[in-house]
Amino acid sequence: MDQRAIGVFDSGLGGLTALRELIALLPHEHIIYFGDTARVPYGTRSRETIINYARQDVSFLRSFDLKAILIACGTVSTTAMETLEAEFSTPLFGVVEPAVAQAVAASVSGCIGLIGTPATVGSGAFERAILAHNSTAHVTSAACPLFVPLVENGRYEPDDKVVELVVAEYLQPLKAAGVDTLVLGCTHYPLLAEAIAAYMGEGVRLINTGAAAAQALAGFLREGDALSDATARGEQKFYVSDSPEGFERLASIFLHTDVCGEVAQVTVG
Amino acid sequence: MDQRAIGVFDSGLGGLTALRELIALLPHEHIIYFGDTARVPYGTRSRETIINYARQDVSFLRSFDLKAILIACGTVSTTAMETLEAEFSTPLFGVVEPAVAQAVAASVSGCIGLIGTPATVGSGAFERAILAHNSTAHVTSAACPLFVPLVENGRYEPDDKVVELVVAEYLQPLKAAGVDTLVLGCTHYPLLAEAIAAYMGEGVRLINTGAAAAQALAGFLREGDALSDATARGEQKFYVSDSPEGFERLASIFLHTDVCGEVAQVTVG
Repeated sequence: MDQRAIGVFDSGLGGLTALRELIALLPHEHIIYFGDTARVPYGTRSRETIINYARQDVSFLRSFDLKAILIACGTVSTTAMETLEAEFSTPLFGVVEPAVAQAVAASVSGCIGLIGTPATVGSGAFERAILAHNSTAHVTSAACPLFVPLVENGRYEPDDKVVELVVAEYLQPLKAAGVDTLVLGCTHYPLLAEAIAAYMGEGVRLINTGAAAAQALAGFLREGDALSDATARGEQKFYVSDSPEGFERLASIFLHTDVCGEVAQVTVG
Repeated sequence: MDQRAIGVFDSGLGGLTALRELIALLPHEHIIYFGDTARVPYGTRSRETIINYARQDVSFLRSFDLKAILIACGTVSTTAMETLEAEFSTPLFGVVEPAVAQAVAASVSGCIGLIGTPATVGSGAFERAILAHNSTAHVTSAACPLFVPLVENGRYEPDDKVVELVVAEYLQPLKAAGVDTLVLGCTHYPLLAEAIAAYMGEGVRLINTGAAAAQALAGFLREGDALSDATARGEQKFYVSDSPEGFERLASIFLHTDVCGEVAQVTVG
């Protein structure tokens, strides 16, 4: 048993899609969430800046006594993971491996699609991991730089004409390539899942990277006998770098439930 | 005569639309430009964070010996101007007053439109300034949160279907209100001018806030006999907070010419 909390962080609100899964799987765990809302988005910035920001984010989380940190951000997982693992001793869980394992298992044709931020797609991290699992897989990737601004501005409904148009534009090459599995390589994208599924059509399996990472972390804690006491409900505490005003409303959309727990502002970097 | 340089800053690249006008008006001036590309966009952040960032930006520019600073950012001009003026002695020029003076002079009907970031529209600064000039004016405002992400991602061509759709969505209430003059209350928006003009139709005058501010600053320097030596061409130096890679290509789109001058990265905040 390990009563310490789990840290979860993202550039903004996207990581809450991973948090949602984590709470469902492990309702007894205490969780510290950090969203860098004063500097979101990350995925259109340079590799150097993303690494710099990620380092500051993990440093902040390590000011708590944590048993593990979930890097619930596709951009940081693909761009800064090696640096973070070299610099920090707390066990870190990114979204790449868990999502790729699910995608390779789900794909019948081996024709797998990947969508992510420009930094994520540019890193080639998902492609390398897919090919390491299945050397005959065929990966088609597309950067979707407008998805995070759309979602962070509350634009994700499938009947939103702008969403519909942008989804069709970005996904057209993946549909043309006939992918049977699509990795949503950014934790913001599950909010667009309905619009994406509507465009891709039935028979294309969508992989939720945040949920996959949460499942992998839950497995790690179970195997290591590091879960919290199962007799009490876990508590969540939220930290954001911009004003907490408006956070609860937006966060409840990502979490599919009200935010239960304190929300505080913190300066990082 | 005053040989000191002029400082120009923006959250990102938008301020280059003001710089372009400044260079055209005052080709002999030395200019230091700072774009906070590691933290753009500002206009969807809280007032407190915008003020904090603006204070750091001006502090960086004041490390040079400047005769004036052009706040070439609608969000900072409407949200942080009073704080900056109280804290810094260098003459500061924002975009509100110059643009409003032009808009009130241009409008025949007194029916004036304003578009800007959520922070700019939420501040009410343009509305107050318009009514101070013409108490019978009627102002219709619309926040356009997706315009900056679109422009910073190179999406502004009038035949871009996403641009066309978003422009129509945001401007519909202003067209319905019958405005005869439209203030582009963000220095990114002149790149969308063609798409905006196509939607609004002939007879609607667009006010370029960055250009208006540059004209006001030029007038101030001329009147104060503070122009630089007119026998030598001015030099420009560019600082950005994210990697300079890619800056020259994007900046040349905003400037309508190649970037002449050094581009360096700097850490602020």
